[in-house]
Amino acid sequence: MAKQPDPARRSQRSRQAILTAARELITEMGYAKLSIEAIAARAGVGKQTIYRWWPSKGAVVLDAFLALSEAGPEQDMALPDTGDLEADLKVVMRATVAEFADPAFEAPIRALNTEIINDPALAAQYQEKLAGPVDEAKKERLRSAQRAGQLAAGADLDLALELLYAPLYQRWLLRSGPLTPQYADALVDAFLKAMGPDIDASTH
Amino acid sequence: MAKQPDPARRSQRSRQAILTAARELITEMGYAKLSIEAIAARAGVGKQTIYRWWPSKGAVVLDAFLALSEAGPEQDMALPDTGDLEADLKVVMRATVAEFADPAFEAPIRALNTEIINDPALAAQYQEKLAGPVDEAKKERLRSAQRAGQLAAGADLDLALELLYAPLYQRWLLRSGPLTPQYADALVDAFLKAMGPDIDASTH
Repeated sequence: MAKQPDPARRSQRSRQAILTAARELITEMGYAKLSIEAIAARAGVGKQTIYRWWPSKGAVVLDAFLALSEAGPEQDMALPDTGDLEADLKVVMRATVAEFADPAFEAPIRALNTEIINDPALAAQYQEKLAGPVDEAKKERLRSAQRAGQLAAGADLDLALELLYAPLYQRWLLRSGPLTPQYADALVDAFLKAMGPDIDASTH
Repeated sequence: MAKQPDPARRSQRSRQAILTAARELITEMGYAKLSIEAIAARAGVGKQTIYRWWPSKGAVVLDAFLALSEAGPEQDMALPDTGDLEADLKVVMRATVAEFADPAFEAPIRALNTEIINDPALAAQYQEKLAGPVDEAKKERLRSAQRAGQLAAGADLDLALELLYAPLYQRWLLRSGPLTPQYADALVDAFLKAMGPDIDASTH
């Protein structure tokens, strides 16, 4: 049989080119000026190719981020579990604070958040594809702490994650305060007081 | 002397008309479609009149909100203080949750937040003119609770306000969970555990 271009493989190549173009352009020009036209031109495809797979600019950007996280091994989502909840959370929160304070992450993450805030359908996609699995990995660590008696057995884990992460998210989003390692530690300390084992029920 | 139009009074009338037009239009068409042209047309002024006082659409919208809160008496910002911190905070947080869950507030508050998130200069203005004074009023209530021994004497009040409000803000912004009176109460309970008086130091 004659060699023919493989349509599935070509599709995959176009898809990758589009996602790479979206990531590059968002860093270069910011989200507001980013257009489907610019992504198509950079990726060397037609606009219709993009619209066949994605309904909006926001949807392309979300998938561009998802492709990044899919590149790493599945275990990357898991939180460290040395048996010491406080120490593990301080490592994680210090790293998270440093990431949010990094100018290289600033533009694309802020752009993605702006889209999610204003597009309920994209918010649902983000929740299902990215935030949901990440939160589930974090809850696994909290359940381990519950089994070890380091966290209240009846703690609401959705509320627990919000207490730990939402103050940092808000401070970053509104630029309302400094993002420092001390702040990360203070968040973990407050979290542990709020969600720690009840004193009567504790076996430690 | 002949009656002449008073320029200061005319300016004040134009200013009010512009802010009213901005509030009306944002509710009718949403923030994305709102333009300086549309505000000028509705207010019966020229575009240049608007640009003389405000550098951007976001700045007009922020002042439109500020004008609303200035209309009320100064004490409106103060939190209730019956002497019972838990009861007072549950009243406040249930009201705040209800406000965020109200569709009438939804569009303009989300629009304003989007602008603030993406415009550091506007974020600074918002912090100085609105968020700062409101936060100060809230801290007054927390200081009263510290004096009453209901809150840790050494508590970081910026972090305290974030713990109380940021989970609600994030849940509303990302539409990531239900906004209910039960949620308001759970937030207050977690806050009081995190920020309550140290057990050794408590005199109660």
